[in-house]
Amino acid sequence: MVQTRVHNLFVSSDGYAAGDHVTLEEPIGGAGALFGKFDGRVIHGIHRIKDPVTVDRAMFSMWGQGIGAEIMGRRKFGPQSGEWPDDGWEGWWGDEPPFLTPVFILTHFPRKTLEFANGTSFHFVDASPEKVLRLAQDAAGGLDVRIGGGPSTVSEFLQADLIDFLHVAIVPIVLGSGVRIWDHLAGLEDRFSVESISTSSGLTHQLWNRIGRD
Amino acid sequence: MVQTRVHNLFVSSDGYAAGDHVTLEEPIGGAGALFGKFDGRVIHGIHRIKDPVTVDRAMFSMWGQGIGAEIMGRRKFGPQSGEWPDDGWEGWWGDEPPFLTPVFILTHFPRKTLEFANGTSFHFVDASPEKVLRLAQDAAGGLDVRIGGGPSTVSEFLQADLIDFLHVAIVPIVLGSGVRIWDHLAGLEDRFSVESISTSSGLTHQLWNRIGRD
Repeated sequence: MVQTRVHNLFVSSDGYAAGDHVTLEEPIGGAGALFGKFDGRVIHGIHRIKDPVTVDRAMFSMWGQGIGAEIMGRRKFGPQSGEWPDDGWEGWWGDEPPFLTPVFILTHFPRKTLEFANGTSFHFVDASPEKVLRLAQDAAGGLDVRIGGGPSTVSEFLQADLIDFLHVAIVPIVLGSGVRIWDHLAGLEDRFSVESISTSSGLTHQLWNRIGRD
Repeated sequence: MVQTRVHNLFVSSDGYAAGDHVTLEEPIGGAGALFGKFDGRVIHGIHRIKDPVTVDRAMFSMWGQGIGAEIMGRRKFGPQSGEWPDDGWEGWWGDEPPFLTPVFILTHFPRKTLEFANGTSFHFVDASPEKVLRLAQDAAGGLDVRIGGGPSTVSEFLQADLIDFLHVAIVPIVLGSGVRIWDHLAGLEDRFSVESISTSSGLTHQLWNRIGRD
């Protein structure tokens, strides 16, 4: 029953899913407009808000359902590259990262595991998609594994055909530059069934379900 | 933050939300067609299935999110009426009722509380909607309260203006008879904002959010 899932992947009309340059000041590389309709408060459930339960929020709330581990790229964890500087960096999220599970961070520069009181832990691994996925599945306790991004990591897992479910939110904006999500994935739709709905916010939610995997 | 919510209320094109006569053989009174697109496996999360995650299933999965107690009408609990017969009836659901929380059952004929190992308990109360809602809120531990149906109970709570959120699924079938959901609710839309989406299954999901309650 263990699936590998991607949630809340925001993609512009021209196919960008992040900005070009991630910095400390711009965690998503100047592509903040991609996330203008996102409501991170509901990733662990619609009951976390008093605001109206919209279709968008219902879709966002799938993020945390039955997830036992996450895999993310290094760039989602921080703006640094190369050897880790001795700067105490523990990710963008402060003392309470929202993951609540083990998180495996792909990097060529492993470092010591970080553990947080809320159940989140960051494990730094230099591994292929297949290998880190096995690590994450072992850690997930029978629950699903989320591929958390960024877009380059999602693309890599899609190219390796390791994704069972992908929730894309198409945002009707034109970014003009950034990290492209659909490169090297021509014909991806042949491996998936896709259902789309559009909501009153202007978002189009696409649910990609991998066909015919046991 | 505590809300009173209704989920997965299936309504036919002609406004019926259950069949006429509930019997042991027909728990929903011959209106089974209403539930033809329903997938009860996902009420505690989309990860409970290996089948594709459709928009319908994503919407159904809101049912269990952050719920601390349910209120249901007697007819949802069983087909009996009047004094409870000494027949050992403990509901339709066997040893593992799917609720996992306290459930308050409205009846003029109170009986002893039933408790199950999975966290479900059935409490039988003869009370007004306002009073049973207070009981349920006290039992919910800061989480939300679900009004579980049947349709007469939902209608009663809507008439009393006690519902904050209502998820209706309009099913494109014509039942011709049954329990009507919209009677005595003319102008209900004035108290709510409503968002609708239609999915590839033919269902239309409506999310009704109460306007302007603190």
